[in-house]
Amino acid sequence: MNGDIFKQNTKAADPAPKRTRSDKEQTRGRKSVRPVKERPYSKRRIAAKAREVLPVKIIPLGGLEQIGMNITCFEYNDSIVVVDCGIAFPESDMMGIDMVIPDVTYLRENIAKVKGLVITHGHEDHIGAMGYILKEINIPIYATKLTMGLIEHKFQEHQLMDVTERHVVRYGDKIQLGDIQVEFIKTNHSIADAAALAIKTPAGTIIHTGDFKIDYTPVYGASIDLQRIAELGKKGVLALMCDSTNAERPGFTPSEKTVGSALDNIFSTHASSRIIVATFASNVDRVQQIINTAYKFKRKVVIDGRSMVSTIAIASELGYINIPGKTLIDIDDMKDYPPEQLVLITTGSQGETMAALSRMANGTHRKVTVDSGDYVVFSSSAIPGNEKAISNIMNEIYERGADIVFQDIHVSGHACQEEIKLIYALSDPLYAIPVHGEYRHLRANAKLAEMMGVKPEHIHILQNGDVLELNEEKSEVTGKVPAGGIMVDGLGVGDVGNIVLHERQLLSQNGLIIVVLSLDRNSGTLVSGPDIVSRGFVYVRESEELMEEARKLVTQTVDMALRKHYTDWNKIKLAIKDTLGDYMWKHMKRSPMILPIIVDVTV
Amino acid sequence: MNGDIFKQNTKAADPAPKRTRSDKEQTRGRKSVRPVKERPYSKRRIAAKAREVLPVKIIPLGGLEQIGMNITCFEYNDSIVVVDCGIAFPESDMMGIDMVIPDVTYLRENIAKVKGLVITHGHEDHIGAMGYILKEINIPIYATKLTMGLIEHKFQEHQLMDVTERHVVRYGDKIQLGDIQVEFIKTNHSIADAAALAIKTPAGTIIHTGDFKIDYTPVYGASIDLQRIAELGKKGVLALMCDSTNAERPGFTPSEKTVGSALDNIFSTHASSRIIVATFASNVDRVQQIINTAYKFKRKVVIDGRSMVSTIAIASELGYINIPGKTLIDIDDMKDYPPEQLVLITTGSQGETMAALSRMANGTHRKVTVDSGDYVVFSSSAIPGNEKAISNIMNEIYERGADIVFQDIHVSGHACQEEIKLIYALSDPLYAIPVHGEYRHLRANAKLAEMMGVKPEHIHILQNGDVLELNEEKSEVTGKVPAGGIMVDGLGVGDVGNIVLHERQLLSQNGLIIVVLSLDRNSGTLVSGPDIVSRGFVYVRESEELMEEARKLVTQTVDMALRKHYTDWNKIKLAIKDTLGDYMWKHMKRSPMILPIIVDVTV
Repeated sequence: MNGDIFKQNTKAADPAPKRTRSDKEQTRGRKSVRPVKERPYSKRRIAAKAREVLPVKIIPLGGLEQIGMNITCFEYNDSIVVVDCGIAFPESDMMGIDMVIPDVTYLRENIAKVKGLVITHGHEDHIGAMGYILKEINIPIYATKLTMGLIEHKFQEHQLMDVTERHVVRYGDKIQLGDIQVEFIKTNHSIADAAALAIKTPAGTIIHTGDFKIDYTPVYGASIDLQRIAELGKKGVLALMCDSTNAERPGFTPSEKTVGSALDNIFSTHASSRIIVATFASNVDRVQQIINTAYKFKRKVVIDGRSMVSTIAIASELGYINIPGKTLIDIDDMKDYPPEQLVLITTGSQGETMAALSRMANGTHRKVTVDSGDYVVFSSSAIPGNEKAISNIMNEIYERGADIVFQDIHVSGHACQEEIKLIYALSDPLYAIPVHGEYRHLRANAKLAEMMGVKPEHIHILQNGDVLELNEEKSEVTGKVPAGGIMVDGLGVGDVGNIVLHERQLLSQNGLIIVVLSLDRNSGTLVSGPDIVSRGFVYVRESEELMEEARKLVTQTVDMALRKHYTDWNKIKLAIKDTLGDYMWKHMKRSPMILPIIVDVTV
Repeated sequence: MNGDIFKQNTKAADPAPKRTRSDKEQTRGRKSVRPVKERPYSKRRIAAKAREVLPVKIIPLGGLEQIGMNITCFEYNDSIVVVDCGIAFPESDMMGIDMVIPDVTYLRENIAKVKGLVITHGHEDHIGAMGYILKEINIPIYATKLTMGLIEHKFQEHQLMDVTERHVVRYGDKIQLGDIQVEFIKTNHSIADAAALAIKTPAGTIIHTGDFKIDYTPVYGASIDLQRIAELGKKGVLALMCDSTNAERPGFTPSEKTVGSALDNIFSTHASSRIIVATFASNVDRVQQIINTAYKFKRKVVIDGRSMVSTIAIASELGYINIPGKTLIDIDDMKDYPPEQLVLITTGSQGETMAALSRMANGTHRKVTVDSGDYVVFSSSAIPGNEKAISNIMNEIYERGADIVFQDIHVSGHACQEEIKLIYALSDPLYAIPVHGEYRHLRANAKLAEMMGVKPEHIHILQNGDVLELNEEKSEVTGKVPAGGIMVDGLGVGDVGNIVLHERQLLSQNGLIIVVLSLDRNSGTLVSGPDIVSRGFVYVRESEELMEEARKLVTQTVDMALRKHYTDWNKIKLAIKDTLGDYMWKHMKRSPMILPIIVDVTV
């Protein structure tokens, strides 16, 4: 790993960061944007003065109605601040699509107002689209140290290191971006250095939790800064935008540390097995705990899987993971140790077919194969949609004679209902705007908000692109801006749209039949063909009769069509499509795509 | 519904069924096939006499390594008995496939030996393939009353009513099929009339549980006949083939009746809502309980969803469901009742996009739309792989303002670990052959068998097609017969194989590019083209430049190829594929299927 990447062009962490371009634009020279309120909004009478305050606009460009692609704009007067810039993973019907990135048309059209991009934490659904979006709109970036390390890793691949402006921020830092001030607040999540944001505008303070949980005994660093959230709440919070991921789950999410004792237990009861632990590449604290347990039980650790290797290298470089000397060994040195002295930490806990665990299980990994003596630990839960793939890989592992444990070796990184309620209690917001989730999660969060005393008419479940304007007096969706997913397929960004996707779906269901013939336009005669080629339809060698029937039928159709309107080739094509389509439906109850191609060989 | 279907050509239920064709073939005139054993095998010394007994062959043609497509052959001497004949639902990579049916080559090749098809219960994974298979091999069918009703419904669609021989069997009946006697034993499952089988051969008795659970308080009929299993165990059971579906789950599956009180609770707390309950079409007992609760709370019931309507009609006709007069109303009469006096029972609990619930939620149902006052009950659990689809439909329901409950309104129809252990304890088999499940489930069942005292070398986890021979002395896989899924796509059975599927997968990922050109073979000159047509690749109108570049490149390639080997058109095609493939990969990191078509216009 190249340690230099973290120095090159990165502004050093700075408790009172240098004023940026944006600061200079702020002519009123305000230091603290909002006057300190004595009592929270919900308990105060509205001051006459407040009526003159412009509303702040909140415009989610993604992250609602779906898991992933988090990006939200906060706009006050001539200042726009963007929070997060993530990808979404493709839905199952988005065939061939690698990822989905947000549509930032609104930002491009208002680029002069955009003062900065503030990142809450380093997960793909919050930073994954930056490599694409920063090429379009180059704005200063603000993030904590580990988050920035992960962003810069991405920027190296996208050749964006030399052209982007990046600021490393610490908890408690207040960044003035035009009329908007952003304060970073310590939270807990399944990756270190996660932050909530206090977004202060003349219209009021908005708290955005980012992805969070409350962990009183985190593996790395301090617990979430509940005091600061309480302090802000005491002063008055206009709106809370709270993580909804686990809003349907009652209770409290257990501490990450509980996984440590579960791991200890597994290692002590499986002293004679090689242990393979699969987990999320980005969960640095989890890897730390596996390493701690390995060290305690005198095992060597091998880390495998491209994304995990790079994440751990960055975390280690930046001091977010502590690996005792000689604990980590190279995968090629595994042969020097007996199985019971080894632990492999690997990607692939979601059943991803190309990930290391899957290759170890199906025998395509070049260096490791799952063995009958192995004990495989799934330190993860299934992300909805991945259940079947995970089950498939488990079958492969069992078939190799290895054993598996997949329960109680994982905790979520997101807050459950009691934690969400606590954040509402501490921040006591006038408005609630649930974020991060599908509709069902946002709605569950909204129910909690109501339970915690937010008025129903003050709770807004937004859709991507909604322009919500709010201040103390009113809150209203006043407009809609372009928002939606842009599909990335290979190097193509946005060149696959609904028409192309629809074609892929059709092709996948019943394949296609191509009918080729050549015509002489002058004489209106068939020069050659029709020939029929099919793909994904039937196994042709065993369906010769069917194909011959089809050819005869097309020949008749073409003859007839030529007699009627030989000059309009589109009509001939249509006749072929209709006749052949009907024939295949009647004989096979299938609807292949039919593609007539007429070659003009007019002499 | 046509009540006649149950009379026409169906032999009446008969405690001592008439001797069948097969019985006559049995020349030795045995009544009781196996001598009664004093003590179970595991506790007995092997008698010298037993050594001469031929082994029985157990040949699963499906149902292992997968959920679904259950079919197993039992062969002794010149007699083969087949148990079940189900479908599997297609895997996610089987694009365009409707269902998978078993390969019965082995039965076709040994048709003279095949004495009967015995069905354990009326679920699709046990009866679904009968419409296809009975056309190939027409053998007498034995099943309980409700099971036969469901089979006959299927046979009406497949025009098999007049050509098949069907025997309705009662619990306790012993059917002699050549050298093999089959006894039907009462069990509990998520459909009524489910049976376990005691398959008696001269080599010993095999108990096949079918799909089962132990329900001491079933909704319909009696509890599982544990006494008979115990009695058989006491006499000596050679092998137990036990349902593995829930073998990974500890404890006991709760009684179906527990769902009734959960439903009562929901109805009493949602007195002012219209209630919509989604469940499995085949779960007659569940529907009975919903109707009971509806009646108790004075609501009218509407049943919707094609498969549910037909199943309930059959169950009602045959007396397996008791609907109090005037409780059921037609969907068109819903308008005569206020919402709080209505219950809809519907299909679609797995998020199936074409099912009634999905159409009610997305507004495409002709008669019902989910409303803000509705309370939707998912009386089901997610079948692995359906989680995402279920979540999608939940979002749609919530977006319409309705509320949902999806926890604790369902119990499984399959036995958990403690129930499985009880069956091992009662039957005390010499051998264990776990059935019904993926490898992970079979393996979990095998572990329970070992825990219950079956020797590890006596536990066989088979693969489809394995020929397991066993008697008291030995058990061994001695061969392999053809076995595997045959894909059904529309009316085509088996005409889509791996090559076609692979093409569909390729097409779905990156679409295809067709290159058409016409050549004069004599002169080796390009007469027209190359023209490029694409589908599922890029949106052509926005990629004109790319397509023009591609066309130029192909033109050069063809020119060059023509100069070198214009007589070998395959080489020209290959050159086009290579060049265009490289170009698309380099410029777009995509691999569309490339299909060069050369039209011969030699004059």
